[in-house]
Amino acid sequence: KINGARLWDSLMEMAKIGPGVAGGNNRQTLTDADSEGRHLFQKWCMDAGCTMGLDQMGNMFARREGTDPDALPVYVGSHLDTQPTGGKYDGILGVLGGLELLRTMNDLDIKTKHPIVVTNWTNEEGTRFAPAMLASGVFAGMHTQDWAYDRKDAEGKKFGDELARIGWKGEETTGDRKMHAFFELHIEQGPILEAENKQIGVVTHGQGLWWLQVTLTGKDAHTGSTPMNMRVNAGLGMARITELVHTIAMENQPGAVGAIGHCDVYPNSRNVIPGKVVFTIDFRSPDQEKLDGMKARLEAEAVPIAQELGLKMEIEAVGHFDPVTFDPTCVKAVRDAAERLGYSHMDIISGAGHDACWINRLTPTAMVMCPCVDGLSHNEAEDISPEWAAAGADVLFHAVVETAQI
Amino acid sequence: KINGARLWDSLMEMAKIGPGVAGGNNRQTLTDADSEGRHLFQKWCMDAGCTMGLDQMGNMFARREGTDPDALPVYVGSHLDTQPTGGKYDGILGVLGGLELLRTMNDLDIKTKHPIVVTNWTNEEGTRFAPAMLASGVFAGMHTQDWAYDRKDAEGKKFGDELARIGWKGEETTGDRKMHAFFELHIEQGPILEAENKQIGVVTHGQGLWWLQVTLTGKDAHTGSTPMNMRVNAGLGMARITELVHTIAMENQPGAVGAIGHCDVYPNSRNVIPGKVVFTIDFRSPDQEKLDGMKARLEAEAVPIAQELGLKMEIEAVGHFDPVTFDPTCVKAVRDAAERLGYSHMDIISGAGHDACWINRLTPTAMVMCPCVDGLSHNEAEDISPEWAAAGADVLFHAVVETAQI
Ligand SMILES: NC(=O)NCCC(=O)O
Ligand SMILES: NC(=O)NCCC(=O)O
Repeated sequence: KINGARLWDSLMEMAKIGPGVAGGNNRQTLTDADSEGRHLFQKWCMDAGCTMGLDQMGNMFARREGTDPDALPVYVGSHLDTQPTGGKYDGILGVLGGLELLRTMNDLDIKTKHPIVVTNWTNEEGTRFAPAMLASGVFAGMHTQDWAYDRKDAEGKKFGDELARIGWKGEETTGDRKMHAFFELHIEQGPILEAENKQIGVVTHGQGLWWLQVTLTGKDAHTGSTPMNMRVNAGLGMARITELVHTIAMENQPGAVGAIGHCDVYPNSRNVIPGKVVFTIDFRSPDQEKLDGMKARLEAEAVPIAQELGLKMEIEAVGHFDPVTFDPTCVKAVRDAAERLGYSHMDIISGAGHDACWINRLTPTAMVMCPCVDGLSHNEAEDISPEWAAAGADVLFHAVVETAQI
Repeated sequence: KINGARLWDSLMEMAKIGPGVAGGNNRQTLTDADSEGRHLFQKWCMDAGCTMGLDQMGNMFARREGTDPDALPVYVGSHLDTQPTGGKYDGILGVLGGLELLRTMNDLDIKTKHPIVVTNWTNEEGTRFAPAMLASGVFAGMHTQDWAYDRKDAEGKKFGDELARIGWKGEETTGDRKMHAFFELHIEQGPILEAENKQIGVVTHGQGLWWLQVTLTGKDAHTGSTPMNMRVNAGLGMARITELVHTIAMENQPGAVGAIGHCDVYPNSRNVIPGKVVFTIDFRSPDQEKLDGMKARLEAEAVPIAQELGLKMEIEAVGHFDPVTFDPTCVKAVRDAAERLGYSHMDIISGAGHDACWINRLTPTAMVMCPCVDGLSHNEAEDISPEWAAAGADVLFHAVVETAQI
């Protein structure tokens, strides 16, 4: 078993970097806090006797050698970046759980045939720079690196420039690594494991996703002296599309979700009718047909809404992945490990996107989930217990060591 | 007649300070640009032989002496502050039109019995610090100065601190001035004069207003892994209240308007269900009963919307004035001046709030309006012609000189 107290200490230590306003974290990707978190992770990996690789997307690779010089490494890991008001565990548990696995192997003097590499994937969250899982996506060949470098945050800063600015742009060609397998430990970020009273989720599938960005352009004008019939109110259009997104998701139950998370209103002044709004839509489903159907219906039914209000509308797809099926052998390694260790477990579909969803296209992949309190994530109040964290890391440890072969 | 070319030059000169992003201005109240605009206005007033008074709210008073030492001054003026994406004329025309009137009187060596004072009222726009017409409101005894000093902008900076910071907090007690009358020249900010092809609006009334600020609190949670029935989505509540505001305004036609201009969404991330929204509602009508009825209906009907979604709701009134009836004698002076000068004119109700609405409670008051292209204001594309500006300033000149008595 791994050392649960050491894992917890490391989680608490990392959480000091980029503190939030309500007990969680704001360590958004490519900020100074992100850089500081990376330095700490690097130091810990060096102390554990690893070498550190860094690619041109800022992905970090801490390597513990295997006994067979020809064997491809087993990769484990997740991401250290957080939401603007994010939790202390989301992603971080997967990276530091990987680190704990290396430390435990050192303690127990375990040698594996395959090397083991612990990764920190850059910009998993996608909130500052859409889409999510950007750097694992480039690694998996889903996006070109140049396109990724050109992604802009809300202030217009580019991903590539910010990566260079914080000093974590490496030289290694992104994606230039072969893997034997990939495992990711992550908190569920949903309520199912806790409701079912299970310690471990064996992730068999992942939901697919469509992220759309909608721009409605009307005419900013005085709220007092512009008669109702002369208004071209972009804010009203956003309200109606918000309701439409909700209706579409509700009519695709069960197994579908939809919401609008980010809204920018221009000029955002009390006495100005909004002349422009930019907002993002997030549709998900494990069912390909439902997923694509929700997007198509939104695109069709938003048109008459915009037309009726006289608004110009642009809809851009800014993130997408299809539903994912993880590798049966790796999934079985996770399930067997949970069983062997005596942890209660169930098969589960990931509601969130994960780096594992992209890496699954390159190499046999699986995920281990542990519950989180009230299913709450992307919230500073996100919480897990040290026991849940340790159970997840134990299962990861056993599945990885089995796959990497002693 | 006044010197239209000189007036236009001054408008263009002032517009260089705090340029916008699309040809208009961003010279929001108590910013460095506001301070720079005040310095330019002060210099021009000094050059025209005036003394300059400054009160504790930053209101500026440029005085041209009269011939009767006992006669109370006739005040004219408006405001130099702008919206974040505002026009070059809104408010500014009224201040610089007042300045042009003094310059013309100097040119023509006109002496009046009553002194004439040109004012620049602080924070008319109310967008940075609600409510609008804040400093004329304190002057008129509608708010206490301490309350005004405590108003905060979106970053939490206080009005009183910002006024001191830019160096325009005077020593004179606010409201410690008696007036013979007050006249304000302003662009219409609406489409009526242009549609009716009139050069001058003789403002008989002003709409009343209610500004409400609504805070909805739900629970920020992951957009992907939170099932639809576990969401407490503050953004959906905002959408429904936006629709409600629109419905209420439409059902009070004619003679009522309503819109939501400012929305802040927290944490404003693509993959987080909004846990909190703060937005502002603007209801107006010249009819007291409709005005208060719209507010009451909103307050009643928003409750079940919030309840159904499980949201906590707070509604705060952050701005209010009753419908205004201007002084018949001053209004007649404006109408007679337009008639005498041969400008086409019509009586009109002001859709926007103006400093004149507060000053009307202290002293006989009237307003002169000139058209603006497409009725557009609170927009950088706000536009008027030099001829329209000159006609407005001419009428102001004649009405003021008649009231101040040669
Ligand atoms: N796990 C996670 O929250 N990833 C970010 C991408 C997503 O929103 O699913
Ligand atoms: N004239 C003007 O736009 N004043 C600001 C207050 C209002 O919104 O009416």
